[in-house]
Amino acid sequence: GNEMGAAAAPTPAVFKRDSYEHRATLTENKCAKDLWNLMARKKTNLCVAADVGTAKELIVLADKIGPEICILKTHCDLYPDFDDAFGATLLELAAKHDFMIFEDRKFADIGNTVVGQYSSGVHKIADWSHITNAHIVPGAGIIDGLKQVGLPKGRGLLLLAEMSSAGTMAKGQYTEDAIAMAAKHPDFVMGFISTRPSAWKGAWSRGLVQMTPGVQLGGGGDGLGQQYNTPDRVIKECGSDVIIVGRGIYKAADPVASAAEYRKAGWDAYVSAL
Amino acid sequence: GNEMGAAAAPTPAVFKRDSYEHRATLTENKCAKDLWNLMARKKTNLCVAADVGTAKELIVLADKIGPEICILKTHCDLYPDFDDAFGATLLELAAKHDFMIFEDRKFADIGNTVVGQYSSGVHKIADWSHITNAHIVPGAGIIDGLKQVGLPKGRGLLLLAEMSSAGTMAKGQYTEDAIAMAAKHPDFVMGFISTRPSAWKGAWSRGLVQMTPGVQLGGGGDGLGQQYNTPDRVIKECGSDVIIVGRGIYKAADPVASAAEYRKAGWDAYVSAL
Repeated sequence: GNEMGAAAAPTPAVFKRDSYEHRATLTENKCAKDLWNLMARKKTNLCVAADVGTAKELIVLADKIGPEICILKTHCDLYPDFDDAFGATLLELAAKHDFMIFEDRKFADIGNTVVGQYSSGVHKIADWSHITNAHIVPGAGIIDGLKQVGLPKGRGLLLLAEMSSAGTMAKGQYTEDAIAMAAKHPDFVMGFISTRPSAWKGAWSRGLVQMTPGVQLGGGGDGLGQQYNTPDRVIKECGSDVIIVGRGIYKAADPVASAAEYRKAGWDAYVSAL
Repeated sequence: GNEMGAAAAPTPAVFKRDSYEHRATLTENKCAKDLWNLMARKKTNLCVAADVGTAKELIVLADKIGPEICILKTHCDLYPDFDDAFGATLLELAAKHDFMIFEDRKFADIGNTVVGQYSSGVHKIADWSHITNAHIVPGAGIIDGLKQVGLPKGRGLLLLAEMSSAGTMAKGQYTEDAIAMAAKHPDFVMGFISTRPSAWKGAWSRGLVQMTPGVQLGGGGDGLGQQYNTPDRVIKECGSDVIIVGRGIYKAADPVASAAEYRKAGWDAYVSAL
């Protein structure tokens, strides 16, 4: 079912939060610390999911919207023109515009396999992506495997504790188990993909970052199970820290203007929730 | 916990099964039908997980062990030398030796994203892999997305109903939900990745194929959560149809001799369980 629907209560409680600056002091993970400080400095909690069809389009888009975002989220396995120059080019843009890179790989295999998938192959994700993420379905060995590769490089891992899609299995005890796994790896796990951490029962360190996909100003859904929520509700009611916006920006007639609009909506929501 | 441990009861019941030939008549999916008939014709239920470090090594190995196997399982994202010729070369070997290709991608994203990941990118998995698999964590939209791409090409999808790794979340209600999702897509879902379907409570069509990873003659585990089970137990007690063997073969001193040994162990177990 649509868990977001439950948020439409008449008088929702506003999730009380710490500043991003303070939360930077609560993490052991380099990537999380960098991100908290970046968001505070640049005044943006907008991550753009740039699900365009080619690497060429992605690079053009990243250079345009770079000034508005804290994170560029990629799916490198969507681009037929991915090549060895991709990572270096994206890292240059990340330095130029002060954003971080998040390859949304959703690793989901056993520990021994993800070691190779993260470090090698055509994509060599660990070489250029500051942040990646993993499902906990295989058990904790997936974190051990990714950590072998990512920790020495100063990378950060997000665990998928919840998803925005209809009928997701990532809820209830599954979410609680993700919280417990994150607590065991404070050096490498930097946060969660989540939809409503304000409702979580289990305790979690406020050094962990909450990032929420499926954000669109209009709300609604697509024909393949995606369910949208607004920036204001995601930050203020659901207790998230970073809004992840995809089609609302990259499919907009003017992606830069749209990114600026989402940036303002996300930042205003954060400031008003402090 | 190690669910396999429960199988070590003093007098295990032997899972009663139909012949592969008969089960070919019970499926609507082209890939499943082809696989049932291939196994019966070639007298092998051995799938090799060829997790070598390069595409070059994979091609060499596939040509060597091809005569022993029903399926070659790949992880194309492990090979730094993957190129546009990979799929065609592998399909030639599949035709030469009469085996099918299974790219173990473990798709795990929302419907809209997996459409691109399956059809496009550098790997273009749908163009050369007969079989692929998906986690059900995102909800049923992932099947809708993959089906848009795979069904017109006559492909088959395996749902990960259980995993062989320690502490996996794919158990209990999660497994039952996978059974229900498969039942809604008999044209495209061809079976399951599973570890003990003989113990499942929910009903499932016998046209669906059960494939089990984590198989090694010695049993045991690795240091990253993998747990091994023997071919005999996997087929006879756990009720699986296809044994997936990785390090037991590709890391063996003589992979061809080892493949022949696993093939015999798997086939003998099947025949004795009929």
